[in-house]
Amino acid sequence: MTTPNLLAERYASDEMKSIWSPENLVRTERDFWLAVLKAQKAAGLSVSESSISAYENQIDQIDLESIRHRELVTKHDVKARIEEFNALAGQQLIHLGLTSRDVTENVEQILIRESCQLVAKKSVALLARWAEFGMRYSKFPVVARTHNVPAQVTTLGKRFATWGEELLYAYLRMQDVMASYPLRGVTGAVGTGNDLEAVLGSKSNKYQTFQGEIRDHLHTDKFMSSTGQIYPRSLDFFVVSTLSLVAAAPSSFATTIRLLAGDGLVSEGFGQGQVGSSAMPHKMNARSCERINGLNVVLKGFLSMFTSLTGSQWYEGDVSCSVVRRIALPNSFYAIDGLLDTTIRVSDDLSIYEEAFSAELASELPLLASGQIMAAAVKAGVGREDAHWIIGEQARNLLAARREGEPFSLAHALAKEARLGLSESAISEIIETTGDTLGQSVDQVAEVVEAVAALIALNPSWAKYRPGKSV
Amino acid sequence: MTTPNLLAERYASDEMKSIWSPENLVRTERDFWLAVLKAQKAAGLSVSESSISAYENQIDQIDLESIRHRELVTKHDVKARIEEFNALAGQQLIHLGLTSRDVTENVEQILIRESCQLVAKKSVALLARWAEFGMRYSKFPVVARTHNVPAQVTTLGKRFATWGEELLYAYLRMQDVMASYPLRGVTGAVGTGNDLEAVLGSKSNKYQTFQGEIRDHLHTDKFMSSTGQIYPRSLDFFVVSTLSLVAAAPSSFATTIRLLAGDGLVSEGFGQGQVGSSAMPHKMNARSCERINGLNVVLKGFLSMFTSLTGSQWYEGDVSCSVVRRIALPNSFYAIDGLLDTTIRVSDDLSIYEEAFSAELASELPLLASGQIMAAAVKAGVGREDAHWIIGEQARNLLAARREGEPFSLAHALAKEARLGLSESAISEIIETTGDTLGQSVDQVAEVVEAVAALIALNPSWAKYRPGKSV
Amino acid sequence: MTTPNLLAERYASDEMKSIWSPENLVRTERDFWLAVLKAQKAAGLSVSESSISAYENQIDQIDLESIRHRELVTKHDVKARIEEFNALAGQQLIHLGLTSRDVTENVEQILIRESCQLVAKKSVALLARWAEFGMRYSKFPVVARTHNVPAQVTTLGKRFATWGEELLYAYLRMQDVMASYPLRGVTGAVGTGNDLEAVLGSKSNKYQTFQGEIRDHLHTDKFMSSTGQIYPRSLDFFVVSTLSLVAAAPSSFATTIRLLAGDGLVSEGFGQGQVGSSAMPHKMNARSCERINGLNVVLKGFLSMFTSLTGSQWYEGDVSCSVVRRIALPNSFYAIDGLLDTTIRVSDDLSIYEEAFSAELASELPLLASGQIMAAAVKAGVGREDAHWIIGEQARNLLAARREGEPFSLAHALAKEARLGLSESAISEIIETTGDTLGQSVDQVAEVVEAVAALIALNPSWAKYRPGKSV
Amino acid sequence: MTTPNLLAERYASDEMKSIWSPENLVRTERDFWLAVLKAQKAAGLSVSESSISAYENQIDQIDLESIRHRELVTKHDVKARIEEFNALAGQQLIHLGLTSRDVTENVEQILIRESCQLVAKKSVALLARWAEFGMRYSKFPVVARTHNVPAQVTTLGKRFATWGEELLYAYLRMQDVMASYPLRGVTGAVGTGNDLEAVLGSKSNKYQTFQGEIRDHLHTDKFMSSTGQIYPRSLDFFVVSTLSLVAAAPSSFATTIRLLAGDGLVSEGFGQGQVGSSAMPHKMNARSCERINGLNVVLKGFLSMFTSLTGSQWYEGDVSCSVVRRIALPNSFYAIDGLLDTTIRVSDDLSIYEEAFSAELASELPLLASGQIMAAAVKAGVGREDAHWIIGEQARNLLAARREGEPFSLAHALAKEARLGLSESAISEIIETTGDTLGQSVDQVAEVVEAVAALIALNPSWAKYRPGKSV
Repeated sequence: MTTPNLLAERYASDEMKSIWSPENLVRTERDFWLAVLKAQKAAGLSVSESSISAYENQIDQIDLESIRHRELVTKHDVKARIEEFNALAGQQLIHLGLTSRDVTENVEQILIRESCQLVAKKSVALLARWAEFGMRYSKFPVVARTHNVPAQVTTLGKRFATWGEELLYAYLRMQDVMASYPLRGVTGAVGTGNDLEAVLGSKSNKYQTFQGEIRDHLHTDKFMSSTGQIYPRSLDFFVVSTLSLVAAAPSSFATTIRLLAGDGLVSEGFGQGQVGSSAMPHKMNARSCERINGLNVVLKGFLSMFTSLTGSQWYEGDVSCSVVRRIALPNSFYAIDGLLDTTIRVSDDLSIYEEAFSAELASELPLLASGQIMAAAVKAGVGREDAHWIIGEQARNLLAARREGEPFSLAHALAKEARLGLSESAISEIIETTGDTLGQSVDQVAEVVEAVAALIALNPSWAKYRPGKSV
Repeated sequence: MTTPNLLAERYASDEMKSIWSPENLVRTERDFWLAVLKAQKAAGLSVSESSISAYENQIDQIDLESIRHRELVTKHDVKARIEEFNALAGQQLIHLGLTSRDVTENVEQILIRESCQLVAKKSVALLARWAEFGMRYSKFPVVARTHNVPAQVTTLGKRFATWGEELLYAYLRMQDVMASYPLRGVTGAVGTGNDLEAVLGSKSNKYQTFQGEIRDHLHTDKFMSSTGQIYPRSLDFFVVSTLSLVAAAPSSFATTIRLLAGDGLVSEGFGQGQVGSSAMPHKMNARSCERINGLNVVLKGFLSMFTSLTGSQWYEGDVSCSVVRRIALPNSFYAIDGLLDTTIRVSDDLSIYEEAFSAELASELPLLASGQIMAAAVKAGVGREDAHWIIGEQARNLLAARREGEPFSLAHALAKEARLGLSESAISEIIETTGDTLGQSVDQVAEVVEAVAALIALNPSWAKYRPGKSV
Repeated sequence: MTTPNLLAERYASDEMKSIWSPENLVRTERDFWLAVLKAQKAAGLSVSESSISAYENQIDQIDLESIRHRELVTKHDVKARIEEFNALAGQQLIHLGLTSRDVTENVEQILIRESCQLVAKKSVALLARWAEFGMRYSKFPVVARTHNVPAQVTTLGKRFATWGEELLYAYLRMQDVMASYPLRGVTGAVGTGNDLEAVLGSKSNKYQTFQGEIRDHLHTDKFMSSTGQIYPRSLDFFVVSTLSLVAAAPSSFATTIRLLAGDGLVSEGFGQGQVGSSAMPHKMNARSCERINGLNVVLKGFLSMFTSLTGSQWYEGDVSCSVVRRIALPNSFYAIDGLLDTTIRVSDDLSIYEEAFSAELASELPLLASGQIMAAAVKAGVGREDAHWIIGEQARNLLAARREGEPFSLAHALAKEARLGLSESAISEIIETTGDTLGQSVDQVAEVVEAVAALIALNPSWAKYRPGKSV
Repeated sequence: MTTPNLLAERYASDEMKSIWSPENLVRTERDFWLAVLKAQKAAGLSVSESSISAYENQIDQIDLESIRHRELVTKHDVKARIEEFNALAGQQLIHLGLTSRDVTENVEQILIRESCQLVAKKSVALLARWAEFGMRYSKFPVVARTHNVPAQVTTLGKRFATWGEELLYAYLRMQDVMASYPLRGVTGAVGTGNDLEAVLGSKSNKYQTFQGEIRDHLHTDKFMSSTGQIYPRSLDFFVVSTLSLVAAAPSSFATTIRLLAGDGLVSEGFGQGQVGSSAMPHKMNARSCERINGLNVVLKGFLSMFTSLTGSQWYEGDVSCSVVRRIALPNSFYAIDGLLDTTIRVSDDLSIYEEAFSAELASELPLLASGQIMAAAVKAGVGREDAHWIIGEQARNLLAARREGEPFSLAHALAKEARLGLSESAISEIIETTGDTLGQSVDQVAEVVEAVAALIALNPSWAKYRPGKSV
């Protein structure tokens, strides 16, 4: 019985799972072998059309169990798959002049590129959601918290813009990485290209003809100029680092939603038939947001595997990285995929309780005004640090009174501080208008929304992506 | 189509896979629910025998697909499994007075204990192999290397004893950890035990009666005294740290085997039909040792996920750890399991080329003697640091000559250094007998072998464990 | 100008800094060299008392700059320190029969043991604080939260007991680790003991006599039986893993204090003259708790360096670990030291606002009672899962009403649900008494407090430790 | 007494240490405060020139001890430095409308940018060395190894080109990151810009005037559009990820040099007066290469601290990141700085023993030819996989004979395999000419060298950088 990959099964999308499925790997590899064979033919190797057809007819005959049995003998996965494909086709023509890594490296890089494209799509889909929240709540004032303590006024829209800009930055870095992403190419056992020359002959431009065909098959002209048997593993590290960069904003979003849910200000959504707790019927937990944070940890764990691989290559390549990459490459993509899908779902189902937000703001206004009051005192001629101290002391008195359930007026208390030189009515007015002190936040949100809109314009369909149902 | 867990499928044993299989998880959980129900009955709750039988009859009716469909609605995995089991039994009696974590925490801890037991067994099996090598090569002198450069003489047996002692230390630490391993127990939604009291009534000793029955079912009397909803995640971290400790010696072993294989001194074994490279027919790679090193990296990656969870609990428990533990717990055990099985296989198949070792020793003897020569000079009255300097300079001349393929006699060169006060024949004699300078190594090996033997005596069958065939 | 170690300077105690100071390292090393020299004399080597005195007189003449200049030439730190000590004493007698690692490994292990002892002391000091809180608030009911959402009733004392038990577990594991902690001992360049035999002569029991003296100097009889040049780096990994285990409970404590401070329920203390924010005079941030969480991250980062070292040893020892351990060993101890001191300070200064806690409890009681109401319904004959569903639905209605600021009586609403079979007064009574549903928590706290008390009884002075003032 | 930062003291350059020195931090911060003050004046705030001068005159009066004493009271580092600067100047004008993070974030980002520039310079310096080796050994054939086992022929120049290309890729990614690097800017306590508006007045374009001046001071127009109190910590993570990318090629280089040194093929250099081992006078260890690998581990450990910070931000910013960044930012740069300087030193001092390389190649040629022989057999009509099997079997016979010290001719043995259809002379010719099978490696090296040359042309002085002397 197959042991299921729970990360993929529970959290990843069908699209991502199909990219990394064993069947797709075999199929992509066979495509690649045939592309090589045809490129060799184009470069002058004598290969009959019927031999090529013999392989082509078998491309979809994928019997993983048979391959596994071959590997139990050869102890070599690629050799097992060569033998299987040859046996199906009744030929021994593929893999001529190749080493295993000619195949596996390029095939994995093809899958990495496709996966990154999927991550890009979902990033845009999420950015579109957040931009919409940004606009909708662009002028809706809420309590901003630093150190988890009420600080000043911000807008709810600005929170989304801030997460959005962090994700946007990550998205653009992923575009940078993919734009520079070099494939290893087909250069043989130690990367010199000699194996191919042995097959094609080193004369004239046969090698170049072959490489041109391969370039077409791989849809890129970015290749490493010089590798050993393998491409440098720091390349994998950097790709997965970038996935981790993409995960950051969704994860900070989820953290804050969990905090807000604890204060009853938002809910991540609660479906028909959903249960929050098996023991406590009343529970409505931010369980999807917890999942987002958890998947962020999972992704970081896989990243740490890639981190271990950088800078430890022996000579032209050892293969202690083999098992690591076999596990960590697909799982890294499953993790980011599940993380993005879950964040999109939460964004789609998010309930925002505006009255609750406004009630919190009203009760915190005197404290949130403390900086404004200080600024007024400074304008009135008080030293900045002196004003800071006087206001701080009375604000602490307010907090103490609140904890005891006693009344306390900050305006009244500060008006009695002669050194401040501010009347009670002046202070009260500052406090009352503090809810309007949005600073530049409306413009800030607009800037981010505009940048997202420009991105969506490039790929309008991406913004409309909706993930399927999930456990 | 199920996405396979490649780590489990390719590297883990059937024993380990069956512990963590979804089916076994469901079965263990149902056993646990019934143990709770019976304990509740023992503590006075009115439950009919026929109701219990109704559940017992369904324990093995495990339909994962049906459970999954329920979870798509409830968004709660335990609730889905409760409903499934209830529907099968036509009852709603299980899970009374429980919270989900009452079930999942204890069930996972049961699986962790079983897995650790399996790891212990395989550790002993590996220790047995290494002890045997230790004895066999206890007096076989080889070149010891530090900084990868020939240093002095050691014995091949001592290398195995050294790896063995590191593994032995880890094994004992795992025994410590397991001996102190506390289960969370059944204490309800926030750990106060109140949910159970609500079911059983708080009078008399019903709660204690119930707990006594559960203790019997779980075969331990080590329980946390006070937890929130979950047991502290630092416990998981420490268990997996200990797995990483167990992995260290096998991985250092593999590293050195890979180095030795590169110099043609050992081979990790090469089966009938095995292939080293798809491109280079002559290759005999230490691919299993590379796999051991790779699995060590994989395990460390999963450890880093547990590291992330420690010290970040919110209140009585958040569940951002849920997805992390669901992934990282079984996979950590798959990784250590595959690592140990692979190391046992390599140890069983290891070829040691004694002539090649001896040839290397013979050629390095003059250098290996440098410390002995220094000691002789000191005895003859030369300052230690002066002797060090003189000998060092001539040794570097020897290395330079060797690289040019020119003859050079260290004894001759040093005899000409009047300050050393040693004759050429005295130096030659030191060099010639350096191969016998085994120091205390024979006794050292014996100490380790004896400790391993004592361990095997406790579990003789464990030493005989042989892993199955592998890709 | 010296670049300061900010981790040590800002956060570590003088005690910990002095253990790892460069001066103490030189002094401990010189003590060790002299212990070796005396042991060699005891084992028959001819060494004059005056030579020993010549060294002893210079032990405290520590000129780091002079040593550094020697190292710039030798490119070998131990050799530089040998030369310095020899030059001071006018002798060349130390380090006979030793390799550098004979010195550095044992010296580092001495410092590790001392540091662990200090960590143990501070752990007990912290446990003492938490046990006191546990007792004081043993019966003080507060809202327990899971998933950050109100769940049931717990006591504030139980929270401290829960953190306490996690720390207690870690403390005991550290005791396990230290009890089993083996020193590398003095066994020469590749661990065979041959270098010493060359000095002492291999006849009779000179080697054993020497080792007996060293054992006395090192105050232990736990030594590795067989090592190469170095002790296995997995040993360092395990020690620092255990430090990370110790850090877990303080860090979870700090996380929850930060959450509570955000709701105005506690304050970590605010000194005379302290400032919360340079911009917002009213701020009282849980900045020390944030520091605890930050130091936990720092410690994990150093742990990851040790993780990298396990299982990657080449032959009898490479020295790629040298720079890593030089950095990570002291810094790991600085981090845990600062973390524990900070947690003790926060515990000493913690303000708990009881009225605020009780006000929160009163407002959440109806929800916290949901499990109790379900249990009552089950007792009245309703199916558990049916009752779960009915109560859950009305609880969600209550939450919705609360967010709109509208009145809603859960008792009233549930009484109208005929299927539940519970009257409004019965439900109201359940709700009213829910604040008393402390379950076994008082006993649970007592168990932990008792265990801590037993520990304190062993080291009464440790409990009284108070860290010095800090930035 | 100050605890020294050993990472900085032993391994980092004066340039890097001075960037992150406490004095430079204070000075850069004061510059920044004055830039803000002048920008506020430009935007209409009434500030006298004499007040500005009063501050300017004190910029270099840096008394760290005095600042530390202030922080012991305020428990707030920025507040302590404000008070110090104000006290020196006899003014309270700085920091108006600012929050601490307005200052610290931008100042740290200034230092990060400078440090990255230094890393870029050293990367180019190293690339220049490697390109030179690449050219010098472009046609020098050596044994290529995969899985640490002889595989085929490559050139020594190609090895340098391969490391060079990996470093070049990293260098370009760092240029990408720096080109996109956005500063947080001056936007107040929660990022809305409201604090500044309170000071400047919100009318007309005073805010924009101010920001324009700040932009000029910071020499960039890349700023985040919307942040909370802090810039997203994923930005730090990505910068340090990129440092880790830069470290990869030097570390793989060091790993291979260590392997080569063990076989006597290279030496990393050995200075006048240098000592390899305190016990074994003959030792010449690749200790600097071990240091490079160690510093790579250290850097990864600091990276893991940044990894922990991504995605865990609470609301507008918690400060659990404070201690982490204070430690990990400078130390990450010290680590990469020491790593690059050490690699440049090794490259400058590297001894390559050409005769030894050539002797190894001669002895391995028959095996290295195995793929060529297979290609010849395939051309002669044999099935690829059949040829693979026959050649593999005889190659294993050759290895077995070699280990026993017995003669064995691969050409002779294969000629007897009728199925292969190759004569002994044909096979011998293939073997003899295998040393010339350099494939495309000369062109590959040329491509990399050219790319490096183009880079150097942009910054010719960078290529000439030489690190100072080191321990």
